[in-house]
This record gives sequence, structure tokens and C-alpha cells, in this order.
Amino acid sequence: MQSLPSQAMRPFTHTQSLLPSLSSLSSSHSRYFRSIPILHKFNSHSKFLNNSPKAPLLTVRNCSSISAKPSSELRKKRTSSEADEKLRALRQLFSKPGIGIDAYIVPSQDAHQSEFIAECYMRRAYLSGFTGSAGTAVVTKDKAALWTDGRYFLQAEKQLSSSWILMRAGNLGVPTTSEWLNDVLAPGGRIGIDPFLFSWDAAEELRQAIAKKNHELVFLYDRNLVDEIWKESRPKPPNKPIRVHDLKYAGLDVASKLSSLRSELADAGSSAIVISMLDEIAWLLNLRGSDVPHSPVMYAYLMVEINKAKLFVDNSKVTTDVMKHLTSAGIELRPYESILSEVESLAAHGATLWLDRSSVNAAIIDTYNSACERCYEHLEKLGKTQMNDGLNGWSAAPAGIYKVSPVSFAKAIKNDAELEGMRNCHLRDAAALAQFWAWLEDEIHKDVKLTEVEVADKLLEFRSKQSGFMDTSFDTISGSGANGAIIHYKPEPDSCSIVDANKLFLLDSGAQYVDGTTDITRTVHFSEPTAREKECFTRVLKGHIAVDQAVFPENTPGFVLDAFARSSLWKTGLDYRHGTGHGVGAALNVHEGPQSISFRYGNMTPLQKGMIVSNEPGYYEDHAFGIRIENLLSVKEVDTPNRFGGIEYLGFEKLTFTPIQAKLIDLTLLSADEIAWLDDYHSQVWEKVSPLLEGSALQWLWNNTRPIIKQ
Amino acid sequence: MQSLPSQAMRPFTHTQSLLPSLSSLSSSHSRYFRSIPILHKFNSHSKFLNNSPKAPLLTVRNCSSISAKPSSELRKKRTSSEADEKLRALRQLFSKPGIGIDAYIVPSQDAHQSEFIAECYMRRAYLSGFTGSAGTAVVTKDKAALWTDGRYFLQAEKQLSSSWILMRAGNLGVPTTSEWLNDVLAPGGRIGIDPFLFSWDAAEELRQAIAKKNHELVFLYDRNLVDEIWKESRPKPPNKPIRVHDLKYAGLDVASKLSSLRSELADAGSSAIVISMLDEIAWLLNLRGSDVPHSPVMYAYLMVEINKAKLFVDNSKVTTDVMKHLTSAGIELRPYESILSEVESLAAHGATLWLDRSSVNAAIIDTYNSACERCYEHLEKLGKTQMNDGLNGWSAAPAGIYKVSPVSFAKAIKNDAELEGMRNCHLRDAAALAQFWAWLEDEIHKDVKLTEVEVADKLLEFRSKQSGFMDTSFDTISGSGANGAIIHYKPEPDSCSIVDANKLFLLDSGAQYVDGTTDITRTVHFSEPTAREKECFTRVLKGHIAVDQAVFPENTPGFVLDAFARSSLWKTGLDYRHGTGHGVGAALNVHEGPQSISFRYGNMTPLQKGMIVSNEPGYYEDHAFGIRIENLLSVKEVDTPNRFGGIEYLGFEKLTFTPIQAKLIDLTLLSADEIAWLDDYHSQVWEKVSPLLEGSALQWLWNNTRPIIKQ
Repeated sequence: MQSLPSQAMRPFTHTQSLLPSLSSLSSSHSRYFRSIPILHKFNSHSKFLNNSPKAPLLTVRNCSSISAKPSSELRKKRTSSEADEKLRALRQLFSKPGIGIDAYIVPSQDAHQSEFIAECYMRRAYLSGFTGSAGTAVVTKDKAALWTDGRYFLQAEKQLSSSWILMRAGNLGVPTTSEWLNDVLAPGGRIGIDPFLFSWDAAEELRQAIAKKNHELVFLYDRNLVDEIWKESRPKPPNKPIRVHDLKYAGLDVASKLSSLRSELADAGSSAIVISMLDEIAWLLNLRGSDVPHSPVMYAYLMVEINKAKLFVDNSKVTTDVMKHLTSAGIELRPYESILSEVESLAAHGATLWLDRSSVNAAIIDTYNSACERCYEHLEKLGKTQMNDGLNGWSAAPAGIYKVSPVSFAKAIKNDAELEGMRNCHLRDAAALAQFWAWLEDEIHKDVKLTEVEVADKLLEFRSKQSGFMDTSFDTISGSGANGAIIHYKPEPDSCSIVDANKLFLLDSGAQYVDGTTDITRTVHFSEPTAREKECFTRVLKGHIAVDQAVFPENTPGFVLDAFARSSLWKTGLDYRHGTGHGVGAALNVHEGPQSISFRYGNMTPLQKGMIVSNEPGYYEDHAFGIRIENLLSVKEVDTPNRFGGIEYLGFEKLTFTPIQAKLIDLTLLSADEIAWLDDYHSQVWEKVSPLLEGSALQWLWNNTRPIIKQ
Repeated sequence: MQSLPSQAMRPFTHTQSLLPSLSSLSSSHSRYFRSIPILHKFNSHSKFLNNSPKAPLLTVRNCSSISAKPSSELRKKRTSSEADEKLRALRQLFSKPGIGIDAYIVPSQDAHQSEFIAECYMRRAYLSGFTGSAGTAVVTKDKAALWTDGRYFLQAEKQLSSSWILMRAGNLGVPTTSEWLNDVLAPGGRIGIDPFLFSWDAAEELRQAIAKKNHELVFLYDRNLVDEIWKESRPKPPNKPIRVHDLKYAGLDVASKLSSLRSELADAGSSAIVISMLDEIAWLLNLRGSDVPHSPVMYAYLMVEINKAKLFVDNSKVTTDVMKHLTSAGIELRPYESILSEVESLAAHGATLWLDRSSVNAAIIDTYNSACERCYEHLEKLGKTQMNDGLNGWSAAPAGIYKVSPVSFAKAIKNDAELEGMRNCHLRDAAALAQFWAWLEDEIHKDVKLTEVEVADKLLEFRSKQSGFMDTSFDTISGSGANGAIIHYKPEPDSCSIVDANKLFLLDSGAQYVDGTTDITRTVHFSEPTAREKECFTRVLKGHIAVDQAVFPENTPGFVLDAFARSSLWKTGLDYRHGTGHGVGAALNVHEGPQSISFRYGNMTPLQKGMIVSNEPGYYEDHAFGIRIENLLSVKEVDTPNRFGGIEYLGFEKLTFTPIQAKLIDLTLLSADEIAWLDDYHSQVWEKVSPLLEGSALQWLWNNTRPIIKQ
């Protein structure tokens, strides 16, 4: 899939309105550049980025997406008086003792920088009534403003009451949140945030931006003001049971993973680490959860010390099996809420903590820093320069080591069991897709009118019959005709289109299985495509083939392959405004870093054996059609006849096996090698997927995997 | 041409021994990253770079190349006693009043970071006896060491007397110059340099490296110690007359160029600039010189203020014509040696000077900084905060603005007249090459034994008959068989090989004409190439075609195209250890920045309409053969059917028109499109070059431009 619920994955829409500022994006520590590959560390030369110099700093940092469908409570149309009431209640809190603020910022995020978040954390949606996936609300004593990007201008206009100013981020002259605050507040104001909802880097950037007008950033630790007004109606935090991710899928037991991590800690001179990314915790502990849609993770923090480890989690989610599993790996349980006090205690014991400032929230890092400071002052008073850290003997006063989480990289390089799970689930997924396409073509040819949502629901039905199916891996993008050109299109039941037999249909979808994660896009036509559609489709296909067939020396960063995907489009003056590939987790998040294939040339992470990337070039013609062809690939060693430089040469193994529609191809544009690639692919699809099918789906697969005949 | 006299252009030989350190290369201000495109700002992920973590810092900064053939005085074999005498004389100076140093560093450079330098500045060669193009000499009171890279280990062993330690830079365990100094000197030593011979950035890096052992870097302004011992035998500085570069070739008069520059100065808030790169001065003033081989430049500095300009040059080189030309552009003459006093005077008048710290030498910048400091102290004493800068009225105390020279970019984007000159001279060059190849094939088929040098000399003879010929643009690389695999091979009369009829022959050469500069490589076989040679040649050709045919959106950095050149080689596990393209001056330096096409991904300079780049993929099989196919290209707008994003799509126009040898092509590896490209190219070669030829050369051109017939 290309278009992601997370704003961070969606920077290249035409409006580009939520693009992070150049300065924020060039920060190598930004969360976005680690977890979100297509945006990884892009820089000011990036060609599309330059179009949006006024993009808000803060908004993006705060707009990790809300992709769980809001409950009816959240979705119902708000009246102006309801909105006013919430704002009034919120503002009342401003002057309460221990608060004393002039403005409060409500971002979209949870405390873990998650792409998909639980409903109880959808505070911005609750407060403002705007339920889009990206947005930041800022409330002062007399104003309330909401920033969102071009995808959501219409929706926000509908959903926001007149008490709210809609800030069309990215439009000319629209200030960023901090610019606006600097403008509307009298100098020296106090601007409150919930420090759990900002990464340290994001909070720091905000602090610096508002310092220009002498404003102070106030961390309100003990209370989220929106939660206080939300009161009883606030959904409970999710507490679905955690399950053990079977070793046959994980491939490596927790003890081994912890042992590697501890070696890395020791090498870096740190005695502990706090991990806050939910997928990193799930991967490291071979656990899976159900706290959010699409991502099989559970809300938790993990603290790993040299000789112990603590999981901070609501223990109602911990089954007996999970408890056994954790205990045998030497992991203790702690309440989710006790993370800060344990961080303080670590500092008091002199632990040198490894913290990823781009992902760990400001509450944790600020708490650790303060505790270190106190510890240092205490030592000074005693006239000592060293202390017993309780773990390793005597050490100097504690201090943080600020580096990217080592788990990110370890997780990205899949082991054999993970790769095997990915291969297997992709075949079952392909079987479901064959059933689905056979069904859909049949319905359309029978002239049944189906909406984009009905079609997506039917796909889910086929998938859910496959063994090991757990969930979709993101909201299905089902776009007919012009809707396909909206890269981040999300059809809604009450407003979506009928799938038109005479237009291109783009379907980007994926699933979570017990053994792996899928993400596939196909674009099809149910009758006769135009020459224009065929030319564009064929150029996209040529790019897809070029990436798929690429061989490259080890240590090659993914961006080197990006131009292969675009070359054929460029020759005719076409392009697409998104990256070509993102990392994918194994039975984990559908988007993960650190690798990517993108025109954002700053991500120097080399593609390495065992990494998984999507290969998804596209082309989008506004108000007309969208084309994207996406397979998942794993990076493998290629047995080249030569090995210049004595190094490995790498290439890709396909994981996705679903036919590419032949009628959309303009054969005059394909070389003999490209036709051979397609025939070979289809022959593999038939060989691998046909054993899982019967009846009309089998027939459909047969029909769609025949060799191309060039006239 | 690929292989360049400048070390900075030659980082990827197998030994890689003079690679700059990672830290030095990642500095965006380093001279190398501006003027030397293939190295432009490369970073630590670069795949070949990682092999050489111990590369010396200093050596590279000091080894701008000596490519003028040293005179017989310099080239003759030194005796040990001669060498000892020079070292003794040098060391005697160490303790003289006003010097007082413990070590002296003698780099290869002149005061302008030139690629080609005049003999009188070949101080390192004079002192050490080692005449290779790259090396740094360091002399302490009791030791003398010379750093050079793998290309020159054998030569240096022969040329250095036993008084010298040869430092095989890049080999395991070999220290860098500063590491060595830190090791052999007692802490707190004084290390002398001639501050004219180090860019500010290089001197600063050295200063920091030796500060670890508390050593002080001493700038010896008024005396170059090598010159003092060289005495009478030192060649005089070159004083060949300067000539005016005709407006019909320059395209833009000096007044217009100065006016643009002054706008840039004003925009940057500076009131003056000192330009020290010789090609920038020649370009800006429409002048050409003959002070160094291969580059039509003259030794000079240029100071441009808002309302005046001063050229610091030996006025014996200034003819009446040139004087008139300068006067009419409002440019005054000053003695070359008076640059520092004028810089001091600028500071005293409060001028804010734009200085490119990566190219301007440490003497100038240090002098300016000191003068600013004095000026500031003076103002403080007077209790003033502002002064009259004599130009713009009142201003604050002066301070430098440190930015890349604006002339670098202006010079890189050729105007119509410059492009026309480049096109024209390339056709004459092609005629000379056709005559040469016809002659050479004939000689070889008559079984005449010719050496690589004789062949290069004959090529020069043909070229020199072409109108407007001035010089070669670099030393011809004429390599038969295994010599072709030495990327930086320079045949010498007394040691070079016979051009073998049964081996591949690589010829990389170029010329300076009055209207332009050429640089071309062809690889040929005079009898029957092996299947291996044909496969490698064909893959190199496929890379060449891919770059030539590339279309890309505006604002694309050159490195994006680099993988196109390598893709076909990579597929079989092959690669080449040099960049794919460098900038070329118009009747100026054969290597210029800021653009490049390289796997050094740090150079974000976009390829822009009017820029010229070489397209020179290659493949080198050690001890066997070398292949390179090089054309020059100019960047042009492409009239694509679409213009997605409303931007320009760019591509290339070929400047070079010489056949590519068909017998070296394995047609089974070429696509129909690639064969069509070749046929079209050859048809253009015939059409454009045949009118300039007759007799056997015309016949040769006919034979070598026939369409390919695929069996």
C-alpha cells in the first residue's frame, strides 16, 4: 500500500499541507525518520518538499493518525453548543491551581508515536469534533484553532463548529501552530502540553519555536485536560488479552533477543534502555496484542537493564501463558502508569539510560533528566564524584545516551522463520485475492452495482476465511476512477462511489495473519481501458519491474533504487508524489523502518538481506484515475557470476503472488525482457497459488496467468 | 576522462590510500566538495569509502596534483647526499628568529587549490625528490616522512632517498600526517606551514588534529622555507601573457557578470568578495592564461567590491589589450603579492567580506579575521559600535560571510555562446580523433610497434592541427591491456607498453580549444575481443546509454542517475570504483563543480539546464583490461508530452561525436532500443563529422558509423 493512515507516510499529496518543516525533517533524531521509511530524514533539496515552505512545524509531529474508526459517540455531528461547552470546560481548567496556562495543545498522538491508536487516546477528535487522521488542536483563552491538511479541508469544515478556526495547513499565509501562538498570545505566555504525547524532539522543537516570544512550554504531567472534560464518556483503555507469538513464527526466543540487546547496551556504555515503540516491544518479547486496529501490538513500555527487564502494562491483559512466557525470560511486570517512577529510580541508582529522543516521549526523558540532575546535586553535596549504581558497581553520575533504538534495526532484518511466515501468509492472502477478484469481475459483468466500501468488505470476508487471519493491516483503499487518484483515499459508507465498470479501479489492501503481514495494490479495468490509461499503467509496470529485477552491491541505500521506478514515467514527463517502498513488519506493523526506497535521499540505511520492502510505483491523474502496482519483496543475496570488490550483491525475492492485469499493458512499450519477467511471474503465481483454489477462482487465476502474446 | 591528475578526483583506486577521512569528507565546506564533483560531499555510508577508515586527513588536503611534467631539474634522480643537504638546510631554518618550529609541512598545493600547478610551486617534489601527483612531506628536526597513495608506492620508493620514510597512506597501521606528528613530537610542539598553501578549512582541521597533543599550528607568512633553500634554481613564476577570451565565446560581458555577482553580494549582506579559484577569475573576467598546463588560467586573486574591483596579478602578463579590457570593466590592477595588505585595508574600512573557506587560503582569511578583530577593538576603545565602511555608509564592525563562492554555480551553467563553442570544438576534436583512429588502426594492421606514449603524441599532433587548438586538457591516458585497468595510468616514455593488437586499448584524452574543452574516452580492440571483454564492454555501454537517455525532473541531484550507469554491471556482480560524471568548463578546467554524477550521495547540487557533465561508466579487470566509454553531455530541457507537477523535465544533449566500436558489442545483451540509440548516434556522428574529413579518415568514419545488424 502506498497511502497510509499515518500522516507521516502521506507527505506528497498535492496540497502537501501537513509536511513537516524543512528544519524538523532534517533532524536526524526525528521519530518520523526512523519509523516511517518513506519520509526518512529527507532534506531540503527534496524536490517536492520545496513546494511547501510554510508547512507547520508542530502539526505533523502531532498528527500520528487515527485510523480506528471513531465510535458513533465520536462520529456523530456535533452541535455548536456542545463544542462550546467542551471548550468552556477546557478553558476553566487553564486557571486551576497547578495548571495556570494560556493555551493548551492537543495533538493526535498517543504516548508511543503509534501509527494506529486506541479510541481513548483520540483526544483531538473528541475535543474538536474533527475525526480526520491528521490534525492538531490549539486552544487559547479566547480562541480555538485546528490545523489539518488538504485531504481534510472539506471534512473539517463540516465537522468543526463555528467556535473553531480551521487552519488549512500548507496554504499560502497559513501560520504554523507555533507561529500562530506567537502571534495571538501576549509575550511570556504559558503553553501547556501533555508531555506523554510529544516525543522529546518534538517538544524541544516546540519549546524553541515559542521561546521567540518568550513563551514557556509547560509540561502537565499528572493530568490530560481533555481526559478531564471527557470524563465518564471517555472509552476505557483497551485491555484485550496479549498472546504469545509462537516461536515457530518468531524464529528467535526472547532470551536470545534480550541477550543481543544487552550486548548492544554494554557496547554503548549504557546500563538500561527504555523502549516505547509498541512494535519494538512486541517484537522483542515475542508477544502480540489487540489494543489498536491493524497493528498487533499492546500498550506498554519496556525497560531492559543488564540483569533484569520490566514490562509496564495493564496486567489484566496478561494471560497465564503470557505470564509464564515473560517469567521464563526474566521479565517482571509493572503497572503501565509506573513508568516514570521507575525511570526516576533508575536514575537514582546511577543507571546510564539509552533513550531514543525521536520516539521516547518528553515525559520520560524529562523525568530522567531531572532525576539525573538531582542525583548529580546530591553527589556534589556529598563531595563525591561517583556512586554505586546498584548494578555494575561504581560509576559517575548518570546521564542519558541518546541514540536511535537498537531494536528498530534488529526487527527490520527478518530471520528465516519470519521470512517463511511472510511467504506462507502471502500465498493464503493471494488465494483470498483470487477469490475476491473472480467474484468482483463476475458481479460487475452481471452489472451488479457495488460501492467501494462493499467491495472492500467483501475482500475482508474472503481474507477472514484464510487460516491465521487476524485483522486488516490498514484501512483498505478502494478507489474507482477519480477516487483512485486520491492517494490517501478512504471510502466511507455514506459517501463513497460505485465501482464503475468503465473506469480504472485501484485496490490497496493488506492483512495481519498469525504468521505475517501483507500489503498489496492492484489496479484493474473491467472493460476497455483507454490508450492513455494503458500507457500510464505500462510505465508504472516498467518501474515496478525495474525495482523488482534490480541487483545492487551490499551497503546500497534504498533511495538508489527509487529512480529505477520512475525512469519510464520521467521519459514522458510523468511522476508520482510518494516514495516507492517502505519496510513491513513480520506479523507486525505494515509500516516500519528504518529502510525505505524513496526520493528522500537522506535515509542512508542500506538495504540488507532479510529486510522487507514494498515496491509500489504509481501514477495519479487528478480527477481521472489512479494507478499503483505493489508487491512486497524481501532482500536476498543474488548468486551473481562475478563478485567485484569481494562483496555480496543483493536483489529481491517476491512475496506477493497475484496476477497483474494484462489488458492494461501496452505491449509496444515493454521490452522482451520485461515481457519475460511478467510471464515468469504469472507462471509462479499459478504454480504457488492454484493449489489453494478451486472453481471460479481457480479458473480466474488460470485466465490471468497465461503468457503474454506479443502480436 | 575519468582519471584525473587531482587526487581529489581519484578516490576509488583499489588501494584507496589517499581517501580523505570520513569526517573531513562530510564537511560541507571542504574545498573538495565544491570544486571536485565526483567527491562532492560524500558521506559515511558510501560503499567504497568504508573500506578505508584509516585514510589520512591531511594528505588529501595537501595533494592537489602536480600534472605539469617536472623539468629535468626536478626529474633527475637524487642522490642521498643531495636529499640530506636539502633536509639539513631546511632544518637549519627551523630555529631561525621569527620561525622557531619543530616541524614543517610541505603539501603539493599552490595558493589557489589548483588541479594543475606551475613548476615553481612544486615544492614537495623539489624537497623530497618524489614527483608523483599526490603527496605530503613532513619534516621534523630528525625525521622526514612522505605520504602518498598506492598509485605511487613504487615510484616513491625509487625516488625517495634513505633519509625519507615512505608512508604508504591507506595501508593498515599507517598513521595520518597529524597522527604521526602527534606521535613523534614532544607535546606542545610548533608545527609550521605556509598558510597560502592550505585552504582555511584544511588548516583548521589540521589545527584541531594536532591540538590533541597540545601542538600549535604556526603560520609562516613571509617565507616559504622550501623556496628559501631552493634559491636560484627555483623556476620563475610563470608569466605568459594573458589573453582576452572573446565575447563570442564567453557570451556575456564582464560588466554583466560583475553586475550579477554584485547583486549576489548585496543579497548576502556583504560588501566585497575575494575570489581565489583561478578558473573562477578567468571565467568572471573573460580572460584566459597560460600559467599552468591543461588549464587556460593565470595566477591571480580577484577582489570585487560593490563599486570597484581589483585584479592581483603580475602585470608583466597584462598586455595592452587585456589592460583595455580590464579598464573598461572598471577593474584595477594590483601586484599579486599585495593581496593581504588589501584584505587588511578592506577590513579596516569595515567591509563585510564574502569568503569561501573551502577554497580561499588560510593566509587571506586569517589576515582578514585579525584585521576585523583589531577594528573591533579600536571601535570598542572609541566607545563606538559602528563605523563608516567607506562604501555604504555606516555599518557595524566588519565580519566575514562564509559561503561557497557564487561564481562556482554561475560558471557551471553555460550560456548559449559557451554551449555553441563546446559543440563546435567537439566536432573539430572528433575530426582529429577520426584521423587518429584511422591512422592507428592502419599502423597496427601493418604491424608497426607503437608505444602508448607514441600513440598519445600522435593524437596530440592531429589535434594540434585543428583550428583553435591550445593545449591538451589533461595528460592523455593511453593504456594497452592490463594498463587500461589502472584507472589513473599515465604512460611514461621510458617505461610504457607497446599498444598490443590483441588486447583492449583504452584512450582517455581531451583538448583545450579557444572555444571549448573536450574530454573523451574510447576503448577499442584491434583484432578479436574475447567473449568476456565483449560482455563487459556491452554492460558498460548499456550504462552509458541509460545515462545518456535519462529524463529527469528539474531539481534532481546528479547522483540519482549514477545507478543507471551501473545497473547492468551490477546484475552480473560487476562495478567500477569511480564516479560516473564530472562537470567540465567551457574553454576552462576539464574538471569543475559543483555538479557531479556519482555514488557519493552527498552532493545535492541539481543538474541544471546548461550544465555540462561527463558520462563515463567503466569496468576494470585487474591485470587484464580496462573499459571506459565517455562522452560529454550538456543538460537540456526535454519536450516531454506531459509535464507532471508543472515543472521542467531535463535530459542530455551529446557534445561528443566519435564512433563506439561495434565489434566490442555483444548484441544479445542489447535491447532493440539500445541498438536504435547506437545507430542513431552513429548516424549523427557521420552527419556532423564527415564534412570535416577526407581520405582514409572519412572512410574510417564511414566504416565505423554503419547501422548495427542484429543476426
